[in-house]
Amino acid sequence: MTADRLRLHFNENTAGCSPAVIEALRTLTACDIASYPDYEDVTAKVAAWLGVAGAQVLLTNGLDEGLYAIAQHGVRRGPGSDARFIQTDPTFEMFEEFARIVGAGLVRIDPEPDFGFPLERVLAAITAHTRVIYLVDPNNPTGRPLPAGAAESIASAAPQAIVLVDEAYADFAGRTLIGQVFERCPNLVVGRTFAKGHGLAGLRVGALVGHTATVAALRRMIPPFNVNVAAIRALDAALTDDTYLHWYVAQAVESRRAIAAFCERRGLTYWPSAGNFVLVRVGDRASGITRDLAARGIDVRDKSAAPGCAGCLRLTAGVIAHTEQLITALEDILASRTN
Amino acid sequence: MTADRLRLHFNENTAGCSPAVIEALRTLTACDIASYPDYEDVTAKVAAWLGVAGAQVLLTNGLDEGLYAIAQHGVRRGPGSDARFIQTDPTFEMFEEFARIVGAGLVRIDPEPDFGFPLERVLAAITAHTRVIYLVDPNNPTGRPLPAGAAESIASAAPQAIVLVDEAYADFAGRTLIGQVFERCPNLVVGRTFAKGHGLAGLRVGALVGHTATVAALRRMIPPFNVNVAAIRALDAALTDDTYLHWYVAQAVESRRAIAAFCERRGLTYWPSAGNFVLVRVGDRASGITRDLAARGIDVRDKSAAPGCAGCLRLTAGVIAHTEQLITALEDILASRTN
Repeated sequence: MTADRLRLHFNENTAGCSPAVIEALRTLTACDIASYPDYEDVTAKVAAWLGVAGAQVLLTNGLDEGLYAIAQHGVRRGPGSDARFIQTDPTFEMFEEFARIVGAGLVRIDPEPDFGFPLERVLAAITAHTRVIYLVDPNNPTGRPLPAGAAESIASAAPQAIVLVDEAYADFAGRTLIGQVFERCPNLVVGRTFAKGHGLAGLRVGALVGHTATVAALRRMIPPFNVNVAAIRALDAALTDDTYLHWYVAQAVESRRAIAAFCERRGLTYWPSAGNFVLVRVGDRASGITRDLAARGIDVRDKSAAPGCAGCLRLTAGVIAHTEQLITALEDILASRTN
Repeated sequence: MTADRLRLHFNENTAGCSPAVIEALRTLTACDIASYPDYEDVTAKVAAWLGVAGAQVLLTNGLDEGLYAIAQHGVRRGPGSDARFIQTDPTFEMFEEFARIVGAGLVRIDPEPDFGFPLERVLAAITAHTRVIYLVDPNNPTGRPLPAGAAESIASAAPQAIVLVDEAYADFAGRTLIGQVFERCPNLVVGRTFAKGHGLAGLRVGALVGHTATVAALRRMIPPFNVNVAAIRALDAALTDDTYLHWYVAQAVESRRAIAAFCERRGLTYWPSAGNFVLVRVGDRASGITRDLAARGIDVRDKSAAPGCAGCLRLTAGVIAHTEQLITALEDILASRTN
């Protein structure tokens, strides 16, 4: 939340960051602010937290910059005009943005009716021109998991491509691909962010994690001073406060359950989510409900324009008290609306 | 300075940022840190400070990200394999980095013996394939000015290209191209940073300034949440404290004079600089002197590998007391070295 609004439209941490982060930021001196940052210590700390070597981690200015590095690397691996990227719809909007920015052709795989993962259709779409394949676990905006083994099958079938598994919401899912997989699949890269569970969205810090050689190649696609010193100081503190992370994840899990229960009470279709959000189908009322909630100071995301998501709202599931506020408002709005 | 070292190798603000910035950063709440930033107010403030409209300003994650946007825009304006960028050597190393990242061919104009600006040779190098031309005023590492009218002549001669005038050191030079020029030369873009005079290098914030339509096109080359909330809060405060900026610029100007006087006493060649640094030729002793200074806790930049800069050191000219410390150490080292 900022100001008086309840922000449930960006999947941010609605509790804010850990108090340890605020305390750490207070230690920044005038000379820290004026000096180009050093990333060695914090990279080692992130690597230890993820259970990999430092050379397997590339810190980025939000995960967005990591997505840019992957897109740029993909388009530069051969004639730019041949480059094709694959995404499975609906998915995170920034994949499409970076494909556009670097000038790659985007191959979109249509959604399954229940947002199941279209493994066979992804495999069938791979060609010699495929340079990047975007996967997300759990997927945004559906919250649906990537089936076990799918990323490895795809990475093996497209050795010429980088296969990104965007794990922005991994803290809430409680699972990750990070580990031995990079030895078997050196073209598989995991994207992480500290925006969600750790609540550092405003400071912009994410990471790409993969095989040492792949990470080295991706590092060559970004400038040397990409992450700011406040993000570094904050991240260092956030990683020491797992208690806060676990508390917030528990709040989000409880909020998912509350939203699911609300949907079942009201007979609304929703998709069981492993993220800090739930996609709910409210039908033709989607834009009206979004407007009514906004009028009450609650922002949610109308995903109606996304493939397969007509009439769907994406509701951020954060602090339980915020979710209760949302559900109360929704009950009230649904009771008063005729459509 | 960080820790115990005197950092004179990155042209940072050796005094640190304004105390007003530190105070402003203390107002960041846990929810500010956890929320994606909004850029509207601070963009308007930067625009007012620069004397242009808000739509003429694009804030970037350090000026580096602005350079990336220009390179990407340049390579995407036609077949990527045809793209040629022009730079005049010696110059800021990141131009070459971004040309490499986006895959553009780089045309390098050799230096004049005295680092004068090679206007005729730049004009002669322009072809139909020229997409970006990099200019710097004052130039880094030489400190030499771009002659009046040169940028406009080049922009007019290459209407198909973006002509960047990197004004990273404008605060110390006391001049800028920003103003009516963008109406006459819509393909001319000025790059600014708040890293130097304002001492925000660690927070990463710069800006591209130009014609509204050109800035809109460049905006499409960067992701929406590129600058962090600490940089925004800091910049907002820094722009209210012109007293600090003026004090620091006066320190840097005095330091330039002190370095020049030292060079004249010791019979060393140097180039009168309009930036917060001075390029000094010490000859074969360059690497030895750099090492000796480092052993005394003072870091300077040996520019010997840069075109035309064999045997040259770039010395950051910041707080006078720091410059005096540098000069004392240099006098001592020169007195004790036989080569």
